[in-house]
Amino acid sequence: MSKAIKVSVIGAGSAQFSLGLVKDLCLTEGLAGSHVSFVDIDDDRLDMIYKLGTRYAQQLGSSLTFDKTTERKAALQDADFVVNTAYVLGHVIEADMRQLAAEKYGYYHTGGQFGAYHQLRLMLDVAQDMEKVCPNAWLIQSGNPVFDGCTLMTRQTSIKVCGLCHGHYGVYEIADTIGLEYPERIVWQAPGLNHNIWLTHFIYEGQDAYPLIDEWIATKGEEYWRTHVATRTHDAQMSRGAVHQYHLYGLFPIGDTVRRGGWWYHTDIATKKRWYGEPWGGPDTHLARPYFVQTLAERIAEMTRWANDPRTDMVKAVGVEKTHEQIVSIMDGLINNVEGYFQVNVPNHGALTGLPDDLVVEVPAIVNQKGIQPVRVGALPPKVMLEQILPDWLDTERELLAFQTGDRSILLYGVLNHHQTKNYDQAVALLDELLELDEVKEVEDWEKMPRISDHYKYPATMRVA
Amino acid sequence: MSKAIKVSVIGAGSAQFSLGLVKDLCLTEGLAGSHVSFVDIDDDRLDMIYKLGTRYAQQLGSSLTFDKTTERKAALQDADFVVNTAYVLGHVIEADMRQLAAEKYGYYHTGGQFGAYHQLRLMLDVAQDMEKVCPNAWLIQSGNPVFDGCTLMTRQTSIKVCGLCHGHYGVYEIADTIGLEYPERIVWQAPGLNHNIWLTHFIYEGQDAYPLIDEWIATKGEEYWRTHVATRTHDAQMSRGAVHQYHLYGLFPIGDTVRRGGWWYHTDIATKKRWYGEPWGGPDTHLARPYFVQTLAERIAEMTRWANDPRTDMVKAVGVEKTHEQIVSIMDGLINNVEGYFQVNVPNHGALTGLPDDLVVEVPAIVNQKGIQPVRVGALPPKVMLEQILPDWLDTERELLAFQTGDRSILLYGVLNHHQTKNYDQAVALLDELLELDEVKEVEDWEKMPRISDHYKYPATMRVA
Repeated sequence: MSKAIKVSVIGAGSAQFSLGLVKDLCLTEGLAGSHVSFVDIDDDRLDMIYKLGTRYAQQLGSSLTFDKTTERKAALQDADFVVNTAYVLGHVIEADMRQLAAEKYGYYHTGGQFGAYHQLRLMLDVAQDMEKVCPNAWLIQSGNPVFDGCTLMTRQTSIKVCGLCHGHYGVYEIADTIGLEYPERIVWQAPGLNHNIWLTHFIYEGQDAYPLIDEWIATKGEEYWRTHVATRTHDAQMSRGAVHQYHLYGLFPIGDTVRRGGWWYHTDIATKKRWYGEPWGGPDTHLARPYFVQTLAERIAEMTRWANDPRTDMVKAVGVEKTHEQIVSIMDGLINNVEGYFQVNVPNHGALTGLPDDLVVEVPAIVNQKGIQPVRVGALPPKVMLEQILPDWLDTERELLAFQTGDRSILLYGVLNHHQTKNYDQAVALLDELLELDEVKEVEDWEKMPRISDHYKYPATMRVA
Repeated sequence: MSKAIKVSVIGAGSAQFSLGLVKDLCLTEGLAGSHVSFVDIDDDRLDMIYKLGTRYAQQLGSSLTFDKTTERKAALQDADFVVNTAYVLGHVIEADMRQLAAEKYGYYHTGGQFGAYHQLRLMLDVAQDMEKVCPNAWLIQSGNPVFDGCTLMTRQTSIKVCGLCHGHYGVYEIADTIGLEYPERIVWQAPGLNHNIWLTHFIYEGQDAYPLIDEWIATKGEEYWRTHVATRTHDAQMSRGAVHQYHLYGLFPIGDTVRRGGWWYHTDIATKKRWYGEPWGGPDTHLARPYFVQTLAERIAEMTRWANDPRTDMVKAVGVEKTHEQIVSIMDGLINNVEGYFQVNVPNHGALTGLPDDLVVEVPAIVNQKGIQPVRVGALPPKVMLEQILPDWLDTERELLAFQTGDRSILLYGVLNHHQTKNYDQAVALLDELLELDEVKEVEDWEKMPRISDHYKYPATMRVA
């Protein structure tokens, strides 16, 4: 009663992701006999995940099979699912960009986002390859930016795209923190855009559970904020910043949504700690990010030790409990009709009121053999739309326009409107330097994009273009 | 062959406006015998304009008749046109708001915009009165904010609304400055939103004349910017700031559009002078605004002397040349089918691509007895839409949502996202103080709106709402 499929994993060397995928595939009977093709440009990482996956499956007695390649197109052949988890520039270059912005221009912890061009380029390349090689396969996008990238791919190709993110699990952190006896029993909805989702419904034992959040805030909030010390950098779901946003908007922000909000949450480490707590001030600080990256590196080091030591008990190391990832369950739904209810990022077409049809929104969906069918959730409150959702939509449209036209001056708009930018010339200089970093400019077509300062630096501005 | 109409002028004591309207009506044969009803809450101003209008018409031998009243509803009876030019709070209170923001909070020349609530309240009151008293009359809106107010009135009432502004005449300043022999012969279009219009077409003697602008910039620009000294505060059409925006967007910004642009044009007087020239740095500086207001006051003083001195030759004082205002020509078009082509602000319904139907856009229109019929101009370039038009649209939607819900926290969003705001608490404190100014709070329903700090001040934020 099982159906074997082929899953191709782009960026398979990701420490976060691939081993969990292998585990869930091994533990899903309906997908027995499936094949996983690992793709990565890093031979060592590729070799490591191939060894780990193979040994885990063998030890478990699973019929899962594997191959590995650095050639993406070969891996796409006959794929039923392509999972893209790649991060092109990587955390080190992201840190270099932030360091440049900080040390030379005085910005607090920003600049890393200018790697988006490279991510979009890769995403579109993958989807375009799929059109040629495996046009009926599903593309599961888990690398960021999910919102921008999925919108780009669905607009520019005919590939079926579904973006996945962990952020929505934040709703269970709320349930857990406010002390619901059975947090898993909550019924909830939190639609929006990826990293910008809002808890419209929060129901427990058939009752609206928002009053329980309010009661927690009133009776336990202050103590929690005074005493809580995060053990993960991303532990901010019940922070002051989250509750402040809830009070501004009347809906609780969920998951990565909490990390956004206005610039005023993000000006310096003292402010960050005030809103997002100790010890890191949330995931986006000069304290948190290196710790997060170091944790990833330690995880890779541990996995490398496993890979290099044939005596490692892989089943013991990896476990036999399914992860909380949605990805394999979605495959099981699409392939074997094991119907489920998921939080996905798919083209809108009326699911969320007031946004373009071809924009990718994050909404709940029923998944079965018919496909991924978003629930038409209706509208978010006008204030959430006008202050959070629609400005974010415009940001993404600008990002995509810059990508598609190669007009760097559109990126300049983003730097200029960063609240910490002090004047026009500073923005031009910062952007030019960021885009000229060696690792950043080593990208196809990069040289075709004019330097900002060629056209937009004052007083050169006054020249005829 | 003439048709007498009734025109009601709200805020008739405006120094700018009413006498020109009387002159144009006197000089338009097709509207002979018409009646003008002046309305103002200021008795002295009302008396002055009534005297001046009456004497001018009499001396000219015009059949125009007049009355004056402080009761708006009475004046609306049997009106064919209602012209709203009122400014509720006035320039003095605007200056008080700016002074508070500057002296206590360190902002450069901002804060005046928080009078918008009062303007919107008046506009909606006028349109709602018209629904009861003169439902078929046209409402000509010339007081600001034209974009926000006209959108509000057309959404909330069934009144026909047309907003008018002077900004588009800037295109003739371009033609004049670059030395076209017959500037009046240019054919052009500059659609957008009010105060946010972009020169899509600029044709002279059948040829695209943009290259002539480029040539002027290349050969004469630098000298002009180095030597030009403005004689009006609003003389900024050919400033560095305008040309910079042209180079950013590929289309020339027209009229008041030049005064907007990003925050980086507006941080301090040195920056303002760099972009908008000497001696005032454009119309929106601490040097320009008092001069502008003083000029208005001097004009009022002069008109008051005329009114109080029966020997004044009114025809000599006011002249017998029609003004450049569009308003009476539009009336002549609508009433007498004297067809014309105008720049108007009317509900979109497809005239400008990519904006809601019920949003008021600024577009060219053919006006005749059938009505005011906007030209479907098509689309503006994506970059102009994404960086200028759509963010402006969201600003207005937020302004209108704040007005309609009484939720001051939406105004807070505006203060927070002012680039000169340094932190959250500063924004809360400034907005609370601005909204508590005596003149500002003397408005119907004001007390129903909660103080920002009651709900959104940290750490009160952490309280249950």
